[in-house]
Formats: sequence, structure tokens, C-alpha cells
Amino acid sequence: MVLAKVLGTVVATRKDDSVVGHKLLLLGNVDAKGVPTGASVVAMDAVGAGTGEMVLYATGSSARQTKVTDKRPCDAVVMAIVDSWEIGGEVIYKKGRDD
Amino acid sequence: MVLAKVLGTVVATRKDDSVVGHKLLLLGNVDAKGVPTGASVVAMDAVGAGTGEMVLYATGSSARQTKVTDKRPCDAVVMAIVDSWEIGGEVIYKKGRDD
Amino acid sequence: MVLAKVLGTVVATRKDDSVVGHKLLLLGNVDAKGVPTGASVVAMDAVGAGTGEMVLYATGSSARQTKVTDKRPCDAVVMAIVDSWEIGGEVIYKKGRDD
Amino acid sequence: MVLAKVLGTVVATRKDDSVVGHKLLLLGNVDAKGVPTGASVVAMDAVGAGTGEMVLYATGSSARQTKVTDKRPCDAVVMAIVDSWEIGGEVIYKKGRDD
Amino acid sequence: MVLAKVLGTVVATRKDDSVVGHKLLLLGNVDAKGVPTGASVVAMDAVGAGTGEMVLYATGSSARQTKVTDKRPCDAVVMAIVDSWEIGGEVIYKKGRDD
Repeated sequence: MVLAKVLGTVVATRKDDSVVGHKLLLLGNVDAKGVPTGASVVAMDAVGAGTGEMVLYATGSSARQTKVTDKRPCDAVVMAIVDSWEIGGEVIYKKGRDD
Repeated sequence: MVLAKVLGTVVATRKDDSVVGHKLLLLGNVDAKGVPTGASVVAMDAVGAGTGEMVLYATGSSARQTKVTDKRPCDAVVMAIVDSWEIGGEVIYKKGRDD
Repeated sequence: MVLAKVLGTVVATRKDDSVVGHKLLLLGNVDAKGVPTGASVVAMDAVGAGTGEMVLYATGSSARQTKVTDKRPCDAVVMAIVDSWEIGGEVIYKKGRDD
Repeated sequence: MVLAKVLGTVVATRKDDSVVGHKLLLLGNVDAKGVPTGASVVAMDAVGAGTGEMVLYATGSSARQTKVTDKRPCDAVVMAIVDSWEIGGEVIYKKGRDD
Repeated sequence: MVLAKVLGTVVATRKDDSVVGHKLLLLGNVDAKGVPTGASVVAMDAVGAGTGEMVLYATGSSARQTKVTDKRPCDAVVMAIVDSWEIGGEVIYKKGRDD
């Protein structure tokens, strides 16, 4: 999975039938220090994430292993909202403190 | 999924039997700001996208989860035409305005 | 799918049983302008491509969706020989003209 | 599989139902010499790895081939703890000596 | 598939049950000219490859399409030992000559 921040949303009216009604989130990847890497991806949302939240997304066929994305042309899904992470005991990111 | 612009089309007469009759689009990836990254990919089309349109494509086995691409040697499918996207409330791209 | 030129062939006598007798092509990726990117890959061949031809290859599990590659440890297959492609109406590559 | 060091852990309370209760490890990739590449990934843990340990992780659908990760939206799993590796007979990394 | 040289072996005692007893090879990728790219990967071995040999490995779900790797958390498998390859008729690598 990859750490990323929810940057915003993507609107697409004309879509494959199987993905109509699915929210599309624009994500910006961050590295282990929480610094944006410049890479971005569009993911479907299985957990109700909002703009500004730090999340984890899964890619590839694993992105279809949620009720929201099962059997759909979806290669990236937000499957967790991050509360915090630490490296060697030091808290690098903490929700609320670092948003 | 990845944001990309439809650059043009690819013609290939000699193809694996399973993909005969399928339109092949040449896509140029863009970043979260809509700026071309230089990367390109050839995708099949599940939504009737045309040159110049901003689209989303899905990759890997997820690219086979449409009626058009099911069970075919296809690793990229255009599954949505983008109307707009925003970052933190600011509209970055809007169809018509930014084409 | 990715645009690439067939650079040559790879010979491997000792192979997993399931891929004995399969031709292995060495491919060099090209970008949307037809310029080599420096990346290369070895692919199986589902369409009878030859050295110097411009082709499309599919990767991942999608590379196993041809009769030639079904159920084999193959993650890249040439599934089309490219005749031409254009960007915004301008022909970038045309077989015969640009070989 | 990829060589990586366990940097720390990620806490996420709001998760897809299928991954509740799963430990999330933050990994930093290393190259063949054991030098960090700068790339990081978040993986589930199938072997009880701890911070500071050198591990191997598998990606994509292969990351779901453990009891811990089966049918879950997980695209990276730690499936081995590394004791040592050598290049041409020279021991590059040895647990205990190089931690 | 990707061209790579077998650099050495990785030892890991604590592993997911499904991969106990499997040899792990450390591979260094090479480009079409046979020059190391700097990228490395750890792969399981389906063909009995040894240190110093030039090989082909397959990735992703395709890495599980051998008897050795079936249903295991393995995303890279050595599925061929390379004898030689040529580009436009010129032999770039020949086993024995270039080892």
C-alpha cells in the first residue's frame, strides 16, 4: 500500500457502466517522512475519506478486493484512513497535529 | 487510475484475434495540475473517448473488467471521460474551459 | 499497452517446461514520438512479429490472455504489429516510411 | 520480491472491514548492497517482523497468497525475514552484524 | 520478462509456510546491451540457475505460473537461463563468451 494525501475529487459523467456512482479521489503520494513525492493517482474510496486526509491505497487486482470495487475497472482503492505512523519510535505523522 | 489526455489513435492490422475490431487510443499522462508528465500508454476504449479529451484509464487485470476488454490481452482501458477535477476547492481542469 | 520496436531475439535452452518452444523477442520501448526511451523488455510473440517492426505489447496477467501465453510464466506479450499512429491528425509513425 | 528494512508501523482506525486487525508495517526499500533507495511502501505482515529487521515483501496479487492477506485489499506483504544475503560469495548483509 | 544476472542468494529462515524450502536468488537487472541498470529484485528459481548466469524472470501473477511458485506469495520467478541474445543480427551476449 502507498501513503498519500487526498488532494481533491474528480468528476466524470461518462463512465463505464460498472463505475457509475463511485466517488473518485485525486491522491498525492507522500514518502516515509510525509513529504509529497510529486506522483499522483486517482482512486475509488472504500472508507469515506475526505480532502486533506492522509490515507493508504492499494493497487492492481488487490484494489478490487472491497465491496465497493469488486469486479470493476478500478486499479486503486483507498482502503484505510491513516491516524499516525512512526519511524523507530518517533511519530512522523499524527492526524490533527500535522494536517 | 491515471489522468491522461487522448493524443491520437494507433492503427494495427495484424493483431491477436481477440482484439480485432478494438480501437486503440494513444494517451499522454498528466499530473495533478494537468501538466503532461511525458509518459504515454496505448489503451483500449470503453467509453467512446476522442482526441483531445481528458480521461481516466485503469491498468493491469483491472483493465479487463469492462465488456469491451474482458478476457483480452489488454492492460490499459479508458473507463471514464473527465469533466473536471479540483484540488482543495480550486478547479484545476474543466472540460471546455481548459481543452 | 506499450509501443516498442523489436530489437532482436533471445535464446534460452533451459526454460520452465511450460514455455519450451516459445519465441522470445527483445523489445525497446518508444515514446509517443517514436523515440526510444532506453527501457527494454523481453516478450513472447502472439502475432509473428519480426526484427525492426513496431509493435504493441501487453503486460501482467493480461499478457496471458492469448492462446500462445495462456497459463505460462509470461508477463509480456506482443499482441499487435503497428501500422501507424497519429497525434492530433499528424502521422508520427507509418510502417515502411519510418522503419 | 524486494529487500526492505522495517522502518516502523502505521496506525489506521478507519479501514475497510476486511483488513481490521491487520498490522501495517512501513518499509524502506534497499538495493543489492543494502543501501536505502528512498522508496517506501506499507505492507501487511505474514511473519511477525519487527522494526529494524530486514525483510522481503511480495507485491500485487502475489501479496494475497498468505493466510493473513487472502481476499483482502492488500498489495504488499512481508513474507520472509532476511538472515543474510551474499553477492558472489561475499556476505553483504548478516542479521546481528549489520542491524 | 526482464534480463538479469544472478548476483547471489538470500537466506531467510522465518518465512511464510508456503515458501519454506524455496531458493531465493538475488538478481541484478541488465539493459538490452547487457549493462547493469542498478535495479535489483529477489526471485524464486524454477530452472536451477546459479550465480553469474544470465537469466529471464517473470513478474506479478505470471510469476506464479510454474510448479515451484503456484499459489505462493511470489512476485518474481526465474523461468529461463539465457544462452544468448542479438540485436539486429549482432550477438550482444553469449554464454561462456561474456560471463
